[in-house]
Formats: sequence, structure tokens, C-alpha cells
Amino acid sequence: MLIVMNHKAGERQVEAVVRAVEKMGLRAVPIPGSERTAIGVLGNRGYVDDSTIRDLPGVQEVIHVSKPYKLVSRDFHPRPTVVKVCGIPVGEGKRPVVVAGPCAVESEEQILRTARAVKKSGADMLRGGAFKPRTGPHTFQGLREEGLKLLAMAREETGLPIVTEVMSPDTVGLVAGYADLLQVGARNMQNFELLKELGRIRKPVLLKRGMSATIEEFLAAAEYILAEGNHQVILCERGIRTFETATRNTLDLAVVPLIRELSHLPVMIDPSHATGKRSLVSPMAKASLVAGAHGVLVEVHPEPDKALSDGPQSLTLPGFEALMEELRRLSAFLGHGGAGENAP
Amino acid sequence: MLIVMNHKAGERQVEAVVRAVEKMGLRAVPIPGSERTAIGVLGNRGYVDDSTIRDLPGVQEVIHVSKPYKLVSRDFHPRPTVVKVCGIPVGEGKRPVVVAGPCAVESEEQILRTARAVKKSGADMLRGGAFKPRTGPHTFQGLREEGLKLLAMAREETGLPIVTEVMSPDTVGLVAGYADLLQVGARNMQNFELLKELGRIRKPVLLKRGMSATIEEFLAAAEYILAEGNHQVILCERGIRTFETATRNTLDLAVVPLIRELSHLPVMIDPSHATGKRSLVSPMAKASLVAGAHGVLVEVHPEPDKALSDGPQSLTLPGFEALMEELRRLSAFLGHGGAGENAP
Amino acid sequence: MLIVMNHKAGERQVEAVVRAVEKMGLRAVPIPGSERTAIGVLGNRGYVDDSTIRDLPGVQEVIHVSKPYKLVSRDFHPRPTVVKVCGIPVGEGKRPVVVAGPCAVESEEQILRTARAVKKSGADMLRGGAFKPRTGPHTFQGLREEGLKLLAMAREETGLPIVTEVMSPDTVGLVAGYADLLQVGARNMQNFELLKELGRIRKPVLLKRGMSATIEEFLAAAEYILAEGNHQVILCERGIRTFETATRNTLDLAVVPLIRELSHLPVMIDPSHATGKRSLVSPMAKASLVAGAHGVLVEVHPEPDKALSDGPQSLTLPGFEALMEELRRLSAFLGHGGAGENAP
Amino acid sequence: MLIVMNHKAGERQVEAVVRAVEKMGLRAVPIPGSERTAIGVLGNRGYVDDSTIRDLPGVQEVIHVSKPYKLVSRDFHPRPTVVKVCGIPVGEGKRPVVVAGPCAVESEEQILRTARAVKKSGADMLRGGAFKPRTGPHTFQGLREEGLKLLAMAREETGLPIVTEVMSPDTVGLVAGYADLLQVGARNMQNFELLKELGRIRKPVLLKRGMSATIEEFLAAAEYILAEGNHQVILCERGIRTFETATRNTLDLAVVPLIRELSHLPVMIDPSHATGKRSLVSPMAKASLVAGAHGVLVEVHPEPDKALSDGPQSLTLPGFEALMEELRRLSAFLGHGGAGENAP
Repeated sequence: MLIVMNHKAGERQVEAVVRAVEKMGLRAVPIPGSERTAIGVLGNRGYVDDSTIRDLPGVQEVIHVSKPYKLVSRDFHPRPTVVKVCGIPVGEGKRPVVVAGPCAVESEEQILRTARAVKKSGADMLRGGAFKPRTGPHTFQGLREEGLKLLAMAREETGLPIVTEVMSPDTVGLVAGYADLLQVGARNMQNFELLKELGRIRKPVLLKRGMSATIEEFLAAAEYILAEGNHQVILCERGIRTFETATRNTLDLAVVPLIRELSHLPVMIDPSHATGKRSLVSPMAKASLVAGAHGVLVEVHPEPDKALSDGPQSLTLPGFEALMEELRRLSAFLGHGGAGENAP
Repeated sequence: MLIVMNHKAGERQVEAVVRAVEKMGLRAVPIPGSERTAIGVLGNRGYVDDSTIRDLPGVQEVIHVSKPYKLVSRDFHPRPTVVKVCGIPVGEGKRPVVVAGPCAVESEEQILRTARAVKKSGADMLRGGAFKPRTGPHTFQGLREEGLKLLAMAREETGLPIVTEVMSPDTVGLVAGYADLLQVGARNMQNFELLKELGRIRKPVLLKRGMSATIEEFLAAAEYILAEGNHQVILCERGIRTFETATRNTLDLAVVPLIRELSHLPVMIDPSHATGKRSLVSPMAKASLVAGAHGVLVEVHPEPDKALSDGPQSLTLPGFEALMEELRRLSAFLGHGGAGENAP
Repeated sequence: MLIVMNHKAGERQVEAVVRAVEKMGLRAVPIPGSERTAIGVLGNRGYVDDSTIRDLPGVQEVIHVSKPYKLVSRDFHPRPTVVKVCGIPVGEGKRPVVVAGPCAVESEEQILRTARAVKKSGADMLRGGAFKPRTGPHTFQGLREEGLKLLAMAREETGLPIVTEVMSPDTVGLVAGYADLLQVGARNMQNFELLKELGRIRKPVLLKRGMSATIEEFLAAAEYILAEGNHQVILCERGIRTFETATRNTLDLAVVPLIRELSHLPVMIDPSHATGKRSLVSPMAKASLVAGAHGVLVEVHPEPDKALSDGPQSLTLPGFEALMEELRRLSAFLGHGGAGENAP
Repeated sequence: MLIVMNHKAGERQVEAVVRAVEKMGLRAVPIPGSERTAIGVLGNRGYVDDSTIRDLPGVQEVIHVSKPYKLVSRDFHPRPTVVKVCGIPVGEGKRPVVVAGPCAVESEEQILRTARAVKKSGADMLRGGAFKPRTGPHTFQGLREEGLKLLAMAREETGLPIVTEVMSPDTVGLVAGYADLLQVGARNMQNFELLKELGRIRKPVLLKRGMSATIEEFLAAAEYILAEGNHQVILCERGIRTFETATRNTLDLAVVPLIRELSHLPVMIDPSHATGKRSLVSPMAKASLVAGAHGVLVEVHPEPDKALSDGPQSLTLPGFEALMEELRRLSAFLGHGGAGENAP
């Protein structure tokens, strides 16, 4: 921690700060400069609460060097985490995985037809929302438990592990009873009660970045899950909110190599939500693999023009098949071994 | 709803769209232009799900005229809603209220001392967090039920209604057992399960705007509460997230008159979280009243330099007293009658 | 300057950094911490170019304490600057000024009619664009020199000083021949060649904040003008670009007290461009004065529905008269003396 | 254009709007809805100035279907533009080009050494700034004409075309006397006087996206150049400004396929400015090609730790050589033919 004093802070104010730091059991080293004095703080283990310092007379700014996360940090845990979902490994050194399926589970026919098709095209897991967060209360909110049962039926038939969203702490048990990978949506990234509850189960979690979350906040949110004991977390960038409205969100693809530097957790990309436009999904899915993502989530719907949500960003079944063919070739070029051959 | 066709969309594509619209039970009116054709959609009651349309060949864009909210809209409910908190009216035509107190309840001594002081200075309600959402898991998370009990003790002594945050659906009952006004924090603005639960109780709710929520999303979130039957909702702007880091958030004060046009619900401002700097709180609190806010939330702490959270943005007790004196004069100038005289 | 080393940086890397700092003629003080070492840099006068440091092995981050501006800083020049425009003082301790007029000068009749009306209502200066920056090339670009002549004619008749935009270095001379206060638009805030040219004239400059400029960049842009010798600069906040589209821009009103802390230059607000909606202009103009602004710029048009640009955000003549009446009362309440009585 | 009326707008107000539209020589078609009436406007050629409409009583919103650009639009000019720089083609169907070099030209030794090395590694063009826009006036501003001469010397020796920035209309002639491709920096994207001047020369222009420019504004800025007669424009995404500070900017890579849909102009990516971190440059350069970019600009410096600007984001010479090897393999995989073999 570094404490920067005002231009006009006198010696007495510097001394008062030094004393306050020492009272916290830490060491303070004044660094006089030509324009102002700074005070280095030593001896802290992890993030220090600066509230007793920031308000002292003469203090201009407090700069933190430590981060609000530690368990997720690569600095402290250099070895990459490989998360296993029903035996399928996700993470560094593994072939990137493809999770495919509709935004929402709508009917038995829709989910089974999609599951069979994406399985045939080579997808690794099936996604589908049973609990759907929607901006307003007057639109389709998902089939809830009925949707979970349909997903389980699809898994039964195809063998694909299922990925689905959980929206509140009290439904974690219910969703975990069906899902193989529990998804936390962007709107719930800082729903801390939900995160803690997920930290207490023993199933892997897919944590989506909040639409205005910094990488620091994203990693700190994951820290909530790890801190409770569940280390099986996959991070997922799905676009952030910016001034640009030509795309649904702005895909922040550069976070892939950045997160890989900062954290040992695997990172995936959701190009469907990030762009919101079908024609942009395939180029961004491919770019994601090249950038180093450990997998992609792609929305696929047998009849996108009849989808109850997110139709315009969903690939058709033939569109998905074509994308898989491209991803397989790209993956082979990048040296991951052929997609679809990654038997558990 | 307006459907804009591509430059090159032919007659057949236009006809296909018209048929799709009619299948939804609505009327479609093609509007040929010099560059492209648009198709007006008539007869819808409220927001239409456009997913069956957006993907048809030749469709370039779908523009919505309706909004994802209706119950909160002034268009449909022109008369202003006045929310009563223990008899204290909040809303149009009423004297603006001042809610004051620490970010977090820390101890009996801290909350009682603050409560007595803000009561004496003329505050209308007492705020204080018992359940605290924090970026990382390694910092103080609040006293939880113990904090609620201390707040109740402070109300007992001072008569001030209490305002406190609720973070998850399963604690709504617990918090509602103590609080007079239940606050939804910015991070939970789209925690829809929480909103629905709050829609089922009969206590007023203070809904804070999410840090990257548009006004449309903000109103749609309030709609979730009203849709379940609870119409006692106060909206609260607390700063949005932008590229600017010189202040903690960016106070979007212009939403005060804007929300008053769009909605019948009362709107308050939290200048403490919006700016994050003590020296900016008073000017922004005063500006809020002039802009038409129905009240302000101000963080006050007896010893800000010892606060467990948000010290730098908290006013001291004498600082708050001075602000109240200014707000009283300003309120009188604006013609609301003197603050502190608004007996229930 | 503070240099933060990696968790794993060894002693040798720390030494290499210390040597590099010393080679720059500065002093380096290593501050070993429990997790990593930081190195304080002393002896610099102003901002240090960190490029020789940032890339050394083991360096994680370089944190600057100094700012890229000095002449505009209140830290170094505590006394407020009062800018005089034709004898009218703008700045701390002076009555706030009102600059009014149309977005663009369109015709003799339009500008004279507006000038007479705003003069009568009590405006201090007349604004009007002769050179207009427009998003696309196919819309009205202003009357150019013809517009300047019409402005001069309006000044001749009403005595109001004129405020108008200059868009390129080579027209500074031309515009300065007519204008009393030269405006730099938001899009040109970092047009450094223009800023330097304005630094060489002896007329006051109104510098508008860029739509995505931080306060630090805003002040650094003003520094360009002061660095060339022209200290007569008024800063103007006109809204920043955020994700919110309900208003044209987001008025960042909290920068008024913030800039007054950081700089000695006067600061004004343009609520018309900031909000883009007529109904929001008056509440925000009043809020600006309460927040401590030294003046406001308001768009006024005799027939807003016929304006060639920005009609929807322009006040009508009676609308402006009503606003002036309110501002006069508010200004008197705030203790600035009555508006309109501030004879040069 | 679509005009949306208020919920409460009566028949007379609708009629008044219809008359106003007709007065503009256009046709108006009222579309009554269940909640409000909309009015379609037909017969316009291109963007309509809505200022005479927006303010009529009862008008709630005006929605534009046309765009503020036409010449750059693929809708109107479906065939891709291939820009030739000294005979090197840039655009659809051509091998992606690599432009490499230092942020700023610093010395003869520095630029020659870089030029030789990047030529040897297979770069197509040499970049280097002679006129440098810097946030504050107290840092290195470039060697100006001296820098241009050094660039010409490097071209003389290596045969590489040179790319350099122009900052003001009055230096366009000077810079065009040396450069083969004139760059407009992000800060000047809406310096309309500069754009017009560049529209009058007959050399290609590289237009960088402003840091808060929408794609619509970006294309409209290019329209300024084309409207003056110069159609040789390459667009360049270099990161936008968002709330995220972990990277210097946020690379908006999804605009590559989006721009390719909307415009016939070539589009390049600058991963160095977009990310600001050396370790992120290579992954993003590769991802750019996969996303469909027609080329990349990469900062390369022989001694990044001594660079006068942008050291931390510059590749070293060996780092660049390694990247070129990767790009060559990737380009071959993508089917563009080997890099470096694209003789003019």
C-alpha cells in the first residue's frame, strides 16, 4: 500500500499517518519527493482496509498494490486448474470444448432435436436455460424444473453433460440435482449469497462476467466460490456494456490472455451473447480459440426465427455443423488434437 | 413496432414478414421508401417479442416503440405515487426527505450515537447496512441479524424509521421483520428472484439503480416488484459506471427530471456512493433537491476514519448538521416548507 | 512514482530497477513487503517518463503520483483565476454568468431576434456557431465567416460579448477577429495543434470537455493552452458518453466541485448538450449553480422546431425568460447578488 | 424515418405532424397502434434532418432508418474496395498486411535498425510517428519534419512504404510529401477540417476509430474523406474506451466482421494500442486475422525499455520475428498464400 500526501502536507501530518499505520501492526516508510511525500506501507499480508488512513488530514490518495483475491490468483497458485465436467477436462493444455444449445429450453421436441444435432456435429456439452433472467416481468421466464427434466432427458439420450443457469441460493440444490455444470449469469456475478452457496457444493461452476465488471471484480467474484471450498470454477467472458450499440455487447477478447496471466482458472467465451448477431458468432468463436480460450459457448436453435428468446444470435443446426467443422480444423492447426476425439 | 427491411429485400420477403406478423395476431402495414421498405406493426398491447421476426430473410432491424414496463409508467398512471414510510410521505408535492446513517452497522455505540445525532440534526430516517455486499470475500460482510437488532434499538430510542439492505430472497422475511424501508442494492437490481419476493410483501422498497443499468432496465426492474402487487417503490440513483475514475461513480443527476416524466414513482439520490468523496457529497445533495429529487441518502459516521467501510465518503456528525442546515434553507427557498417539520 | 515488483521478482531484478532509476538522476528506495517488493522513486520534478522502467524484468506495475498538468493545478496556483470577457468576470466569487443563443447562426433575422430577446431576459453573453462540427458531411456545416459577421452585428446592437467555436488552427486568427470568447468543442479537446494556437492569442478560451475525456485529460488539455502563455481559460462540462442513451450524453455534474478542488480555472456547464432534451435543461441549469458552477451555456432558439440543428434541446424565447427569472432568484438565494446587475 | 407520438397525442397533433412532413416534400403514413400512433415517413433520399419534427407537440421520439453515410456503405457499393499502398493491395481477397515500427521516430539509428529488422522478418510497411499527439504538453511531441526525413531514408534503404500520422490540416501537404499512407489518429477522428483536407489529396488514408466513436460515427467520419473525392481509405480499430482499466483500451474485435458487412472499405486492427500490454499483442494480432481483418499494425522497437513512448506495448525485434512466423503460418492456414510473397 502506498499513501500519497498532499503537496502541502506538513511534517506533523506525515507523522500522524505513520503512527496510524503502525497502530495497524504495519511498517510505514516515508518517501519524501520534490513535490510531495509518499508513505510506503510494509508488512501487510494481503489486502489492507485503508479506511482508517484515507481520511487523515493531508492524505491525498491511497494506492493498493494487493488485490481483493488470492485463491484464484496465478501468482499464488502457478499451476493451471483443469476443471472436469463429467470427465471432460476444461483448461490449459486440453482441447478447447464447445458447449452448444438453445438460450432457453422450450419443449421436449426442441431440446431433444437440438441435443441430437449438436452431438452429431461434435459438441462436448449441451446448454439450455430452464430459469431465465429477463429484463421485464412480462416475457417468458423459462420452464423452471420442467426444463431441467427435459435437459436430463436429453443427456440420457445423447450422453452430453448439461450446462444450465441457477438464479438464486435457494434453488442451488434443485439445479445441482440435474446440471453437470452450473452457470451463474452476468446479472448475478455479484449475487454474493448465490456465489457462497455454490462454493459449498461439489459440482463445477461456470461464472459469467458481469456486464460492467472489471477483471478485478470478476476474479474477486470467483474468489467467493473458492473461498467456500469449491475450486472447480470456469470463467466466461460474454461481452461488456459500453457506449457502442451496434452489437449487443462489446466482446472483450483480450481478457483471454490477460486472465490466463492473472489466474489459474480456465476461461471460455460466449460469442453469442457478446455480439448478439448470428453473422458475428462464427468469426468470434474462431478468434476466441486463437486468443487462447479453453472453450466456447454457442447458442444453437433448430428454428431460430421461432425461438422464445435470443433468436437473432442463435446459429441454425446446419450453421452450427459448419462452425464445428471450422473449429475442428482450426483446433488441429493450433495443435490441440481433433475435436470430438477427447474421450473422457 | 417497426420492421426495417434491407436495401435489397424483395417483394416476396416483405410479404413473408407481413404474414409472420399477421400470424401473431397483429396488423402489418408496409411503408415503401426510396431506399428500403419499412413495415409498421399495429395492434399490439405492450411489448412484443420480436424473435419470430428478426431472423426472417431481408429483415435489417426491428425497432420497438413499446417499453418493457407499464405499471411503473406515468403514461399509464399519470398520478404520482407517494410512498409512506411509517407515515412519512415520499414523493411529488412533499418535502424532500433525508435518510442518514453509516454504510454499515458496526456496534451498538456507533449506531446509537449516529442515530441520536442525525435525529437531532433533522434527518427523517436512519440508514445502516446489516448485510453488506463486498467485492471480495475477505472483507467485513456486516453484522447480519445482530445488525438488524441494533437498528431496531436505534429506532426504539429515536423514533426514526430504519432503512436497510436485503440481499437474497430467503432473507426478505427476516429483514422485513425489522426494516421500515427495504433497500435493494445496485448489484442486485436485476436479481429477479429477490425482486419478486419483495413484490409479495407489504413494506416499501428502495430500489437502487444498477451501476450499468439503463433507465429502461431500471424501470423494468421496478416493474417486477409492482407486477407482484407491491406498489410502494422508491427509485434511487446512486451513480453509474463510466470510464471516469476520478469519482467512485458518475452521478447521473439528469435522470431525476427524466424519471419524473417517465414514471409516477418517487426518485431519490445517493450522493455518497455516487461520488465517493466527502467534499462532493454536500454540493451534490443540494443539487439533487434543485433537480427535483424527492429525497437524498447520505452516509454519516461518527468517526469516518475508523469506519469499516466507505469512510472517505461519509460525512462527520458536524458535517451532516451543517448540510441539514443548508438543505433546510434550500428546501424553504424551493417552497417545500421547512425540513424537520414534516410530522407524519 | 512507485514501482511494484512481481511476487517472484528476485533481489537481482530489484537491483537492476534501482540502477535504472538512478541512471535517470533520481533516487530509488526499495520497500520490501510480505508479498512483493515495491520501489519508491524520489527526486523527480513533475511527471516522469516511465518507459525505461516499465519493461525491466520483474516489474509488475508503475504507479504515477504526479499529474500531466501543473499550470492549471490549484496545488501549485491556489488563487482562483477570474477570466474577463469584455470586462465580465467569470470565476470564483463572481456572480454566475449565463451564455445563451442558438446552436448555429442561421440568418440575420434569427440571430438578431435571439440576441435581443436573451439580452432583454438578462443573458450575459451571446453564443452561436458559425463553424459547425457535424457527424456526417451531408448536413448543414454552418455559415462560416458570414456567421461571424452576423454575430458581430448582434453584438453591435445588443452589447453582448460573443462566444463561438473555432475548429482548426488556421482559422484561429479569423475567429479571434470576431469572437470575444473562443470555444473549443468536445470533439477538438485533444486537437493539440488547435490548443497550441489558442495558447498564442490573447483572448479567453472556453474549453469543452471531450465526450470520453477523463478529468485528468481535460486539465492536461487546458495545460496546452496555458503552456503557450494564454491563461484565460474557462472549462466547460457538457456531458460525457456512457452506455445510457435515454439522454444525449450523461451530465457529470459532480466534476464542478471536483474541478474547483483540482484547478484554479473557472468551470461552466452546458446542460443543453449534456441532456439533449428541452425539459431537462432548466432543472440541470439550476442544479449547476447550486453545485458551484461559475456559469451556464444554454441553447435558445426563436423557433426550435425550425432550427437547423439541436432544435429539441433548445429553449424557446419565453422558456429562456422563465429560466432567467428562476436563475436570478436562485443566484440571489445563493448570495451572488442579482443576475443582470453585474456591469463590467 | 418513423415518428412515434405520445400515448396521449390527439388526432390534431397527428395531423400537424403529417402536414409538417409533407411540407418537407415527403409522404407521411400514420400507423395507429393500441397504445399510441406512429407515423412512417416515405420518400426521403438518405438521412433527413428531423429538427422541424422533433419538437412538434405530441411527438415522443423520431427514429432514423437511414444512416449519416452513403459513399462508404456496402449497401450502395457492394464491391469491396482494395486500397493500394505503393502497389501493395489492402482489402478483401488479399493477403493481410503487416505494418510494423516504433510508436515514434526517435533517431536515425533507431528507425533504420527497426526498418531493416521488420523488413527482414517480412513486414509489408513501416510505421513511425513524426508528429505525436500526447495527453500533456510536457512530454516528447515527436521530431516533426526531421522525423519524416528519417522515415524517407528508411524507405529508401528497405523499400518499405511508410505510414505516419498527420495532425492538422495545414501539415497535410508536408506529410503527404513523405508518407505513402497517411494516418489519422483516434483523437482526430472527428477533426473534420483535417478529414476534408485529406479528401482532397490523392494518397491513401488510414483512419483510426475514435476512442468513444460508434461504428456509425466512424463510418460517417470516413464519409467526409470520400465525399471530397478520396476513396482510398482504410479503417482501423484500435480499442475503445470503457470502464475497464486492466488493459489500455478495450479491443472491439467484433467490429471486423461487422464493418465488412456495413462497408466496402478495408479494415485493420492495431492490437498494440488496443491492449497496451506486450504479452497481449501477439494473441490479439492472430485473433484479428481469424476475425477477418485485412491487416494489423504492430508496434516494434529495438529497445522497448528505452522507447520515448509506448515502450510497454512494443514488441522487441525477436518478438516481432516470432509473431511474423506465426502470422505466416496462420495466413497460409486461412488460405491467403504465404505472407511476404505478395509482391506489388
